[in-house]
Amino acid sequence: MKLSYTAEELIAMLQPASTRGSTEDRVTGIAALSAAERGDLSFLGNARYKLQVAESRASILLLPVGFEGEPKVGQLYLFVANPSASLATLCGRIEQQLWPKAAPGIHPSAVIDPSATVAPSATIGPLCVIEANARIGPGSHLQAQVFIGREVTVGADCWFQPGVRITAECEIQDRVRLQPGVVIGSDGFGYEFVQGRHVKVPQIGRVVVETDVEIGANSTIDRARFSQTRIGQGTKIDNLVQVAHNVTIGKHCILCAQVGISGSTTLEDYVVLGGQAGLGGHITIGRGAKIDGGSSLTSDLEAGSFVKGSPALSYQLEQRINVLRKRLPELFKRVDALEAHLVDLKKTSAD
Amino acid sequence: MKLSYTAEELIAMLQPASTRGSTEDRVTGIAALSAAERGDLSFLGNARYKLQVAESRASILLLPVGFEGEPKVGQLYLFVANPSASLATLCGRIEQQLWPKAAPGIHPSAVIDPSATVAPSATIGPLCVIEANARIGPGSHLQAQVFIGREVTVGADCWFQPGVRITAECEIQDRVRLQPGVVIGSDGFGYEFVQGRHVKVPQIGRVVVETDVEIGANSTIDRARFSQTRIGQGTKIDNLVQVAHNVTIGKHCILCAQVGISGSTTLEDYVVLGGQAGLGGHITIGRGAKIDGGSSLTSDLEAGSFVKGSPALSYQLEQRINVLRKRLPELFKRVDALEAHLVDLKKTSAD
Amino acid sequence: MKLSYTAEELIAMLQPASTRGSTEDRVTGIAALSAAERGDLSFLGNARYKLQVAESRASILLLPVGFEGEPKVGQLYLFVANPSASLATLCGRIEQQLWPKAAPGIHPSAVIDPSATVAPSATIGPLCVIEANARIGPGSHLQAQVFIGREVTVGADCWFQPGVRITAECEIQDRVRLQPGVVIGSDGFGYEFVQGRHVKVPQIGRVVVETDVEIGANSTIDRARFSQTRIGQGTKIDNLVQVAHNVTIGKHCILCAQVGISGSTTLEDYVVLGGQAGLGGHITIGRGAKIDGGSSLTSDLEAGSFVKGSPALSYQLEQRINVLRKRLPELFKRVDALEAHLVDLKKTSAD
Repeated sequence: MKLSYTAEELIAMLQPASTRGSTEDRVTGIAALSAAERGDLSFLGNARYKLQVAESRASILLLPVGFEGEPKVGQLYLFVANPSASLATLCGRIEQQLWPKAAPGIHPSAVIDPSATVAPSATIGPLCVIEANARIGPGSHLQAQVFIGREVTVGADCWFQPGVRITAECEIQDRVRLQPGVVIGSDGFGYEFVQGRHVKVPQIGRVVVETDVEIGANSTIDRARFSQTRIGQGTKIDNLVQVAHNVTIGKHCILCAQVGISGSTTLEDYVVLGGQAGLGGHITIGRGAKIDGGSSLTSDLEAGSFVKGSPALSYQLEQRINVLRKRLPELFKRVDALEAHLVDLKKTSAD
Repeated sequence: MKLSYTAEELIAMLQPASTRGSTEDRVTGIAALSAAERGDLSFLGNARYKLQVAESRASILLLPVGFEGEPKVGQLYLFVANPSASLATLCGRIEQQLWPKAAPGIHPSAVIDPSATVAPSATIGPLCVIEANARIGPGSHLQAQVFIGREVTVGADCWFQPGVRITAECEIQDRVRLQPGVVIGSDGFGYEFVQGRHVKVPQIGRVVVETDVEIGANSTIDRARFSQTRIGQGTKIDNLVQVAHNVTIGKHCILCAQVGISGSTTLEDYVVLGGQAGLGGHITIGRGAKIDGGSSLTSDLEAGSFVKGSPALSYQLEQRINVLRKRLPELFKRVDALEAHLVDLKKTSAD
Repeated sequence: MKLSYTAEELIAMLQPASTRGSTEDRVTGIAALSAAERGDLSFLGNARYKLQVAESRASILLLPVGFEGEPKVGQLYLFVANPSASLATLCGRIEQQLWPKAAPGIHPSAVIDPSATVAPSATIGPLCVIEANARIGPGSHLQAQVFIGREVTVGADCWFQPGVRITAECEIQDRVRLQPGVVIGSDGFGYEFVQGRHVKVPQIGRVVVETDVEIGANSTIDRARFSQTRIGQGTKIDNLVQVAHNVTIGKHCILCAQVGISGSTTLEDYVVLGGQAGLGGHITIGRGAKIDGGSSLTSDLEAGSFVKGSPALSYQLEQRINVLRKRLPELFKRVDALEAHLVDLKKTSAD
């Protein structure tokens, strides 16, 4: 983030309802209220931090209309309807500078099979490889060192960062954003055990990634045994996630980092998987279900559930058990005591 | 999977014992009985799905000899001794189309040290790098953007997919298949803590990968501190797996996705590790032992064991505990009640 | 490890206080006492293995001064003050052979933007990409197929192994060593849920990696939402580790393989995270705290703590609970028995 804005430039951009105070500082950074230094812009995104405003050293603060308080000398308050939304406006502007739109064209160092089709408005960066009959749609950007296999189709306005690999016959639809090192179309992990050896089951399916999907760095999506592995529209996948063969992921799901999904499992729409969660194979996770980070699950889950633990139970039950679990040493002692008392009682009653 | 077969072509290929019905449809896909649409081939691989045969919309079905039932209009049954085996035959044929044999030769964009040796029957694809004194055996295929370090030896008929990296002095034997992004020979993670800093312990060993090993996308195999990290013949490793320095993996093991194995641990032959399992360092897992997905283990395991949990216990005990664990809230209440009753009893007997 | 030393060469290098026995063998390997074969050098690094010395087949053994025992025929003992330190000296020598210093210069196949600055003493290997305005410091080595984004700064004497990717505006300080496939600067995973869709929150911060950091193969470090994700001086990170946006890692921390850290979490100095540990977001791990492998934690942790489990408890309590957990089947039976006895007692007292 290389930024440098004067107060006037920010006022012009964010159109505050009113201002209080003034500053001559250029804004060169953005930071939380408590971490901000002179030269930073900060913001009150959540009312529970309002006591931090008076302490903040930021040069400019985005505050909700009606906020009471006085800026320090050399500090400027900008009052806006929604500080988070104004911040998003600013960040969107900065993002365009961070990732300037690449000029269309093919870098001379790219290796492209003559049978491949690249839209004139696409950008193929240095040292990319595109194999036979692949098709790259309009506005798509392969940044550098990307591999596109035989017969792959890439839709419009995709962005593949350096080192993305997509193997033969996979289909990537529009506006798909792949972070560095993503692998799509690796073989599913399937073997038959025959006479003491694992014999490979051919993995002849492919992967279909629908529109508006994002996939994080070094995540891996396996091709299907046959038919397809599918990532539904608008689904967002974090880094180092494993999606096995024939998995079907619905629309608008969230998969946090290091999640693993075993073969032939289905996620319906709007499922959320916390980091490091692990799903067994051949199960169905119902619409909108949430699985807490680190949990593991090997059976179907009803729509709307929220589960946690290994194996996962309802979130509330797991939380209750985790409290009781800490009291196991005490429980064993109480049972010891009960047994001792009973022995005493028997003696007494035998007397 | 781009396929298109007429009924006649499939009959010629699969040689069914007999047929029933007929279809004019070309087969352009393969699908499970319940998922198949017109134009698909389906199959009865497991008798428990036999009721799905009559419902299936597939154009052609592979069924066991003796199966009773009538195809729909425009549907063809092929009766074979073993539908799964016939399907494998078909899939093997399709796999050859998916991954056509590369023509031998070196792509002009590859960067190969003059001291390296490449067998005339090997294929070195675009933008590969091969460092000094490396040797690539006959029939091996480096698809694209592969890195082969100094003094690496690669045997015959290997296939390294795009972005595979093998660092100096490692040895890859014959018919090894590496999925995209595999790293072999990264430094082991070893430091000595000296005067407040972690001082690197040189990692001067190497990695040996024996014949017929497969390693999944973005998995990492560290070089040894000294001597070697070794992956035994026929072992299959899934995606995003971590194998630390000086680990020895026996023959024909299975490591599912996201498994992590700490340094100097030994797996004897035929060990199976479920997804996300984690093994501590300096332990031995006996021949044929199975560790369930998500389990962790920091002590030796006897041959033939089947364990689960963190820390792992025998599978049966862990399953039993997982049932009882859910009843902890009830157990605490029962102990509360017992204590209350005892107080009552004492009062009564004191009366 | 390709090595070949005569006894005389090793004596000259390691300067033992005294020797016993003799060998004509060239040393071509290093191995633990019990694994060593003829031609290996071995060592007694830990007194508890001293009984293995007499059994060892190594040709040369590094032993502490004062060790009693007689070498076999053709075996040479070298007595040194600290066998581990002498071994480190030898390994350091071998390491220099394993990774010979690259000659400065830029490989003609590298693609470097004219506005980038490469120090004359730096080495840019084959098929690297360096984007606009990036700066590579003196003595730094980009081995092959490395990607350096726009405005990235790389300090002095760094070593980036093949396939490392560093995206725009990140800062890498001096002597940073990155294993193959490391990704630095991938987008943080941040979305707002608006009208049924996940809308991307711009990730406009960057990553700062301080001096003397090492990061393992295929690990991923996300750029900040704004401001920076920071890896402190001397911190060592193993393979396949995920560090999310706005994480701050202190100095001299250790992150073992497959660890995952969620967004905005802070590790103070000297924190140690065991393999596969998972940390929630927005928490602080105090100085010197240790989190055992496979544990998960979603709340702050005090300096100096040692915790284990999911959710993590004090190590001692977790170990105690893990013992008791195995006795749950027994505990349930004991409570059953207590209840039955109480019923009996009541009956008796009612009689």
